[in-house]
Amino acid sequence: MNQSKLAIPKGFVFSAVKAGIKASGGLDLAIAEAPMGASAAVLFTKNRVVAAPVTVGREHLKASRGRVRAVIVNAGNANCATGQHGYKAAQQVCAALGQALSVAPEFVFPSSTGIIGVPLPSDKLVNAIPQLVSEKSGEEAALCNFSRAIMTTDTRQKFACATFGRGQKAVSVLGVAKGSGMIHPNLATMLVYIFTDLEATPAQLKSVLRQSCDISFNRISVDGDTSTNDTVLLLANGASGSKLGEPGTSKKFLDAVASVCSSLAEQIVADGEGVKHVINLVVEGARSPSDADKIARTIAHSMLCKTAWAGADPNWGRILAAAGRSGVVFDPDQTNIFIAGQQVCRNGAAATFDENVAHQAMLEPKYDIRVSVGKGRGKARVLTTDLTTEYVHINADYST
Amino acid sequence: MNQSKLAIPKGFVFSAVKAGIKASGGLDLAIAEAPMGASAAVLFTKNRVVAAPVTVGREHLKASRGRVRAVIVNAGNANCATGQHGYKAAQQVCAALGQALSVAPEFVFPSSTGIIGVPLPSDKLVNAIPQLVSEKSGEEAALCNFSRAIMTTDTRQKFACATFGRGQKAVSVLGVAKGSGMIHPNLATMLVYIFTDLEATPAQLKSVLRQSCDISFNRISVDGDTSTNDTVLLLANGASGSKLGEPGTSKKFLDAVASVCSSLAEQIVADGEGVKHVINLVVEGARSPSDADKIARTIAHSMLCKTAWAGADPNWGRILAAAGRSGVVFDPDQTNIFIAGQQVCRNGAAATFDENVAHQAMLEPKYDIRVSVGKGRGKARVLTTDLTTEYVHINADYST
Repeated sequence: MNQSKLAIPKGFVFSAVKAGIKASGGLDLAIAEAPMGASAAVLFTKNRVVAAPVTVGREHLKASRGRVRAVIVNAGNANCATGQHGYKAAQQVCAALGQALSVAPEFVFPSSTGIIGVPLPSDKLVNAIPQLVSEKSGEEAALCNFSRAIMTTDTRQKFACATFGRGQKAVSVLGVAKGSGMIHPNLATMLVYIFTDLEATPAQLKSVLRQSCDISFNRISVDGDTSTNDTVLLLANGASGSKLGEPGTSKKFLDAVASVCSSLAEQIVADGEGVKHVINLVVEGARSPSDADKIARTIAHSMLCKTAWAGADPNWGRILAAAGRSGVVFDPDQTNIFIAGQQVCRNGAAATFDENVAHQAMLEPKYDIRVSVGKGRGKARVLTTDLTTEYVHINADYST
Repeated sequence: MNQSKLAIPKGFVFSAVKAGIKASGGLDLAIAEAPMGASAAVLFTKNRVVAAPVTVGREHLKASRGRVRAVIVNAGNANCATGQHGYKAAQQVCAALGQALSVAPEFVFPSSTGIIGVPLPSDKLVNAIPQLVSEKSGEEAALCNFSRAIMTTDTRQKFACATFGRGQKAVSVLGVAKGSGMIHPNLATMLVYIFTDLEATPAQLKSVLRQSCDISFNRISVDGDTSTNDTVLLLANGASGSKLGEPGTSKKFLDAVASVCSSLAEQIVADGEGVKHVINLVVEGARSPSDADKIARTIAHSMLCKTAWAGADPNWGRILAAAGRSGVVFDPDQTNIFIAGQQVCRNGAAATFDENVAHQAMLEPKYDIRVSVGKGRGKARVLTTDLTTEYVHINADYST
């Protein structure tokens, strides 16, 4: 993405340092600050095992009634499954940044990403705070450092932005994301920060964030695993002078946040571990949207389907068989499957199709698979990926 | 396994031929016959998409009131997703064998395994029937040919047997299985035929088969995919002169069938596609057996856990995180995880453990992982496997 086109919202500053957490020695600790404060809304992982920063972040937002002054994020250590020590470590880091910014700890929101089960070296984080605070800046270079610092197995930085309104009161929405493996609905190994200079209440933001996630991050899946640390945070500081609820702003803001989330979701999927192909999977004709969703996710998580996609193999039988074990009632004899627009299965049996055309289409980095299971109105979409030997290589040798 | 120790039940004959279905040109069509007829019980796949032979087999058993004269199995083509043509093809094959044996078609039970969506070349099967019938034999060599003919991606033949009773009325139970990929509860890409010379009714057999499958085939999982063709068939011909219900037979027969099923289930898992490690996963301390089962299956299907096992990586954080997304309520802070007897996670955080000892244990072909999630009495066991690059290779290039 052309970073010179990033529309950074007014009134936010960023910085990042090398705190010595990542084994690589790269940037691994970052802050984003709204010096005048911001309203916040957040969505967390639905995993029952949650990392300490998720617990602390939830408590802080409650105590601050949805106000955030600064976000502090480290990569290289998830501070998860670290017991009481991990909880205190997250609190300690927030307290230290709060002190440096002269605010109470609950106005600091923490995130961590990286390996699970290893104690967070909180002293390293605390010691790096003076440098973090002294170097903060609203320049694009600072934002890029922030995005680099929060990366783990990501191979690319991920930004998206949208603007609306004109002149002095123009509003920017900027998203920065991190995430590659374990991409799954309900937010997985994914940290997303969305900044806007619109003015809005935490409740208004929550509604916008939920709607936007439902059509973006909750519709992507790489491997079916969800993380313990996933967080999507939306901060609104009001620096544009525009206020949510003013004529025309509600729809424009929702559209802007939704488009930022959709773009980031696609970037995250495309950067999934070992991913060679992104599949836009649509299931339709089910008796209900939830039936369609179940079928789509079963196909998206089927290792047999995913490996066939890795081989650009138009093996529609595996897709049909995965649908069959989804637990959803449908008639296989009324099922039709299309790969990149070409029908490969008609009424549950092989359609006459050009295998080579299908194979060629499946060599593309992104293509569509459509599965129609009947005449119902239930429809669902999932953005998913293939499963490659690279995925196995990356994940068979992570902690050791 | 030492095939000279196979205890073949009296009154069954077998044969196999090369019918030209497998691209390899190997044995691909086989029959097993009880010349005096047999009582039968069957369990089929729970996949909603079922192959034509499953539909026909179900109809035939109903029409024959649970009596079977012969089984006919082909490999190389699953006769699934083949529409009305596939259904008629399965009927045609049964009718031809029935005619050759002078019985009605419903006394013939069909099975198919192989690629989905390709029309079954039923003429090849029909044309091979005279040779099949002329070469049938109760010798071990014939049984071995039967087992070879039904293999697809299997790398090993799979037999198990058990006997009980003494002298003339001794009873044998012999199982022959095929299956490697897509191993999953509810019977997946798996054909299992169990033969016994005990006398029993179809209803008695059904009860024994269900109990035996519940502790064996329904507790194994390689990749979470289920097949459209899975079948476990139990045939009892009474040739031993012993009858189920006679003093002592009920428990002995159940034990024998259960041990045969358990052995075959283990052999199938160990022969899973690309499998290097078999993990005996036990989840305990859950609030109910069904909660324990959900956690165990979520861990068993987690690609992140399976790839860690491929790398012999004692990454307990992934196990804990998978448990966390199972949808089951438990307290991560009361969770303890043991790998090969060594505690690696204590109360949701890292235990002090010898990583090298754990790594070495995980290099073994089979080892235990135990996950204790609280003080409840719910317990479940799943036999599962790692996920290797070989699995991806095998499955990324099957149909093309």
